[in-house]
Amino acid sequence: MGRFGYDAWVTISLPARSALALRVDEGRLDVLDQRLLPDVEQWIDVREVSAMVDAIKGLAVRGAPLLGVAAACSLAFRAAAGDSAERLVEAAHALRNARPTAVNLHAAVDAMLASLDLGGPDTLVDTALAWFEADVQMCEMMAANGAAYLADGDGVLTHCNTGGLATAGIGTALGVILRAHQSGKRLHVYVDETRPLLQGGRLTAWELERAGVPYTLLTDSMAALVLRDGKARKCFVGADRIARNGDSANKVGTYGLAVQARHHGADFYVVAPWTTVDLLCPTGASIEIEARDATEVRGMTTAAGSLRWAPAASTVMNPAFDVTPVSLITAHIFDRGAIQSSDLALVPSPPAW
Amino acid sequence: MGRFGYDAWVTISLPARSALALRVDEGRLDVLDQRLLPDVEQWIDVREVSAMVDAIKGLAVRGAPLLGVAAACSLAFRAAAGDSAERLVEAAHALRNARPTAVNLHAAVDAMLASLDLGGPDTLVDTALAWFEADVQMCEMMAANGAAYLADGDGVLTHCNTGGLATAGIGTALGVILRAHQSGKRLHVYVDETRPLLQGGRLTAWELERAGVPYTLLTDSMAALVLRDGKARKCFVGADRIARNGDSANKVGTYGLAVQARHHGADFYVVAPWTTVDLLCPTGASIEIEARDATEVRGMTTAAGSLRWAPAASTVMNPAFDVTPVSLITAHIFDRGAIQSSDLALVPSPPAW
Repeated sequence: MGRFGYDAWVTISLPARSALALRVDEGRLDVLDQRLLPDVEQWIDVREVSAMVDAIKGLAVRGAPLLGVAAACSLAFRAAAGDSAERLVEAAHALRNARPTAVNLHAAVDAMLASLDLGGPDTLVDTALAWFEADVQMCEMMAANGAAYLADGDGVLTHCNTGGLATAGIGTALGVILRAHQSGKRLHVYVDETRPLLQGGRLTAWELERAGVPYTLLTDSMAALVLRDGKARKCFVGADRIARNGDSANKVGTYGLAVQARHHGADFYVVAPWTTVDLLCPTGASIEIEARDATEVRGMTTAAGSLRWAPAASTVMNPAFDVTPVSLITAHIFDRGAIQSSDLALVPSPPAW
Repeated sequence: MGRFGYDAWVTISLPARSALALRVDEGRLDVLDQRLLPDVEQWIDVREVSAMVDAIKGLAVRGAPLLGVAAACSLAFRAAAGDSAERLVEAAHALRNARPTAVNLHAAVDAMLASLDLGGPDTLVDTALAWFEADVQMCEMMAANGAAYLADGDGVLTHCNTGGLATAGIGTALGVILRAHQSGKRLHVYVDETRPLLQGGRLTAWELERAGVPYTLLTDSMAALVLRDGKARKCFVGADRIARNGDSANKVGTYGLAVQARHHGADFYVVAPWTTVDLLCPTGASIEIEARDATEVRGMTTAAGSLRWAPAASTVMNPAFDVTPVSLITAHIFDRGAIQSSDLALVPSPPAW
């Protein structure tokens, strides 16, 4: 491992890895600036921890799993560049504080700190690589476990962005869809734009276009029509946190979509890494929902500019997430296997969870 | 009645009338430029028919009932200013063609043409005034008939804009709410922003703020949470066209909201003038749905500018309306009375309709 001064980037031994929105190569560490998508594909140099912290804070990097991988790579990169243990601990705290409620980010930073504590800076590259590879593999296993739920000719509805932009691998819910497409199944994807931050319209549409998957973009309020008309009979969404009973928190709008799916007899699948399950959380009622800034609902800000259309002082609700009760979920698709909610319901306190 | 040259504005005898977004006064005819709301309240001089046509085409004037009143006032104003019958017929056609699918606009223009044909230019002022007054009265009667459905302390959910901006009077669905508020009932209104054109966020929020009614703005995808949590147990929406069996077409998103209301046990009321009922249309299946431009879903344009966030070439669906089946509607509130859908269901071919 290179032990050079702070400015010697060249000889790090962090091997080249590349994800849709993160790449490590030849003494470089870059993240794709997701704020500029879909029009501009611009990479940000995040070799400095401060640059990675800014990228995380400013939402240039997003997606729960990717945040963890990005933080781990940032610390590994600095260790390879020869930063002292003291500096690395400082960097770890700065990364952790960049998004105070991001569970995956914190878990990755904690793993890196434990590695530093137990094995010293030399172990950080391996720990980060393991974290990166684990994320890639988790995505592949979710895609494999979800494959049985998608058939040739299916119409599929999805919400928010759960693809390669949010992970180091192929994605969670969108990963199942993308791999099914690649395996030759002809799918048509209906993409909720996902107000207020429009991750569906901005990011999922971009990923599907890039992957050559036929899709139709719609406002969230049109999802009911897609389901009513049978254009999609299956919904695939991600999860930010899953309670022990299977209740699942995800981007706001997911609950409403699950209600529409139930009313129209469509299947509703939650795809997430097993690590998303919080065994200390008995039901969805215990999941606290972050309220975000009112300006997000009053208008929209992109890299190209800002528009506000609602009254400047309008009272607004803006929960970041909502909770879908397990009763509205057909199955959870995890990396370690899929669980039909009907099976879950058979046991009052499911031992498998 | 003044019989002066084309440029003599001063002595018309069209009496002063004023609506929230249309006013006739002292030789003036103005419409509120609704494109600039909520931030700027600017009136447009529409004494020239061409100016009114531009205002209608450019959506400065909107709202089905208001379009009819505006066209009628435009023709009356020109008649009062001394335009020839030939010129008036020409103007009538220009107004009619400004929005080829606007039923109320066409009905008003037809009534004015009939009046011109039967009584000559001198009758147009009275015909327009009658049209204006009828709209005001229809709103009052809907508000009166809807009063029984709102109680002190109610939370109410609404979609799109159905208030004074859309009519010459207090409005349809929002009119019921506004009059109930004015009668002393303490209400809290939850306002769907109503993508893609955001009439809820832009216009309904503005009207409620102006009227001092407590409200909360939300993205359409959050309506399910408002109903789930019991914050609103009643929905009030308008209608663009109602089939003989009670199926009702309205702004896209209305159907999805009706599904949410049903799932959560909330009441769902459609408020519309009786003229909205199309007796030649047996069920909602016969209602053709206009597909609007993809750019509306790919981004948003206001007077302040344009933002596109979805890929420039993204495939998009953008139905202007959707149809809510009568089975999801608790009652229709008309100017001539309210009809519970359960009563409708008792007779296979309801004689009252």
